[in-house]
Amino acid sequence: MEQIAYVNGSFVPMSEAKVSILDRGFLFADGIYEVAAVLDGKLIDSASHLARLQRSVGEIALALPETTDRIQEIQKELIARNNLVNGMVYLEVTRGADTGRDFAFPKGVKPTLIMFTSVKDIVNAESARTGIGVITVPDIRWARRDIKSVALLAQVLAKQAAAEAGAGEAWMVEDGQVTEGGSSSCFILTQDDVIVTRHNSSAILPGCTRKAVVALAEERQLRVEERPFTVAEALAAKEAFITSATAFVQAVVTIDGKPVANGKPGPMTKRLREIYVDFAKATAV
Amino acid sequence: MEQIAYVNGSFVPMSEAKVSILDRGFLFADGIYEVAAVLDGKLIDSASHLARLQRSVGEIALALPETTDRIQEIQKELIARNNLVNGMVYLEVTRGADTGRDFAFPKGVKPTLIMFTSVKDIVNAESARTGIGVITVPDIRWARRDIKSVALLAQVLAKQAAAEAGAGEAWMVEDGQVTEGGSSSCFILTQDDVIVTRHNSSAILPGCTRKAVVALAEERQLRVEERPFTVAEALAAKEAFITSATAFVQAVVTIDGKPVANGKPGPMTKRLREIYVDFAKATAV
Repeated sequence: MEQIAYVNGSFVPMSEAKVSILDRGFLFADGIYEVAAVLDGKLIDSASHLARLQRSVGEIALALPETTDRIQEIQKELIARNNLVNGMVYLEVTRGADTGRDFAFPKGVKPTLIMFTSVKDIVNAESARTGIGVITVPDIRWARRDIKSVALLAQVLAKQAAAEAGAGEAWMVEDGQVTEGGSSSCFILTQDDVIVTRHNSSAILPGCTRKAVVALAEERQLRVEERPFTVAEALAAKEAFITSATAFVQAVVTIDGKPVANGKPGPMTKRLREIYVDFAKATAV
Repeated sequence: MEQIAYVNGSFVPMSEAKVSILDRGFLFADGIYEVAAVLDGKLIDSASHLARLQRSVGEIALALPETTDRIQEIQKELIARNNLVNGMVYLEVTRGADTGRDFAFPKGVKPTLIMFTSVKDIVNAESARTGIGVITVPDIRWARRDIKSVALLAQVLAKQAAAEAGAGEAWMVEDGQVTEGGSSSCFILTQDDVIVTRHNSSAILPGCTRKAVVALAEERQLRVEERPFTVAEALAAKEAFITSATAFVQAVVTIDGKPVANGKPGPMTKRLREIYVDFAKATAV
């Protein structure tokens, strides 16, 4: 059966899920997105993603066309219509399609809201067991990375470079320090057993999974420091890992081909992944 | 009659001109665009725009789905179908729509090519007679501004700020120096009668109209220096102006509300505009 997508109030087959060529998401990357994981047909960490959506649209003065409660209802209906068990829901809201192309915000134009789902066995992902290799690339993005906009060309190029190198992610580096992955947050575990991840600022996206993992670690009295770290620090660390909505927690076992510790996923990464999976299932809606 | 647009090989009414929600232009800003002016039904400076298109797509490893000769033919057919006399043709090429959403380049997916036209009396624009006011904003864009990508959210926000301030353009400033306008190149005429515009680099888009105006000025033995300048220098200049494909040459008469010279378009700006209009008409295709 063909996938069903949501487009501006209607549930339609993916082949009919279209937007105008005048849509500002298509012309200007004038839009915001969110990706939420789905386990057993339920949304993971949904309130956090919807809060970030609300924040992102606010930062570019874009009004959501639906309340976040209604957006969650639509997500759940889409999951049901696609019989989605494990995977993700993608949603994007743009400043809509005007009658022409003018950079300044249009007046009286309703924002576009679209959603679609995809299947992914997140919990049993092969890469969660083996860990991933990452490459490092210069962080060439704009100055407002805290806004989850669809202006993702820099990330596309970074992740394509990673794919060409046979790596699972690109770590972006600025002023000698890791900012974040192309679509994930970066962590290390120091030799002193401190979990380190870069503090939130306009230099990185405030990761929802990052936030949950930090909170879950602190609840367990694990030591967490939110500060930048270098690639050299990561290579000298006990463990390195990434977090994201659809990877959860995954070990980084090599950086630019060099092993992190013994080149295998470490116990802290495994433990945090288990803790996160438990949290995800317990709080799914 | 409804506007006709071009979408992937077909000429369709604008209301039917749509792309998939999976189009990478919509999901990732993974696309390149060009805007060419039209005077008397003919394309202005077309070879320059098509050369820049070819360069931009090359920089992101995107193959054009049609030759540039064929693209120009389509542009001309679209102009004819819309009976367009004066205005512009917008074109966008994206990395197409895959069956899902993955940052890395898809395999075997044909790029998307769309075009549409709009009406504008460029030669007789009111703002060409009166000049425009500009505001200055921090340049928060990414590091590859030489690529004419659709990742334009920073420019949207800059030009929206200008619109809210009643200004016609936003000049973006980085490290104390003007980079360029939200959708234009920036020039000043110093008290020594030197035309100054920032040199091409990854910090700015290589403007087609900028390039033509520099060449036309040099042909006439006018002194041109390609180097950055500050806002203070612009305010102390004899004249300031912008160039763009659809504004041609227009005077900047105020910057952040302060007048440039006497706050009126100056003779060099007027002269360069006339020279450019003559060039445009003489070389239109």
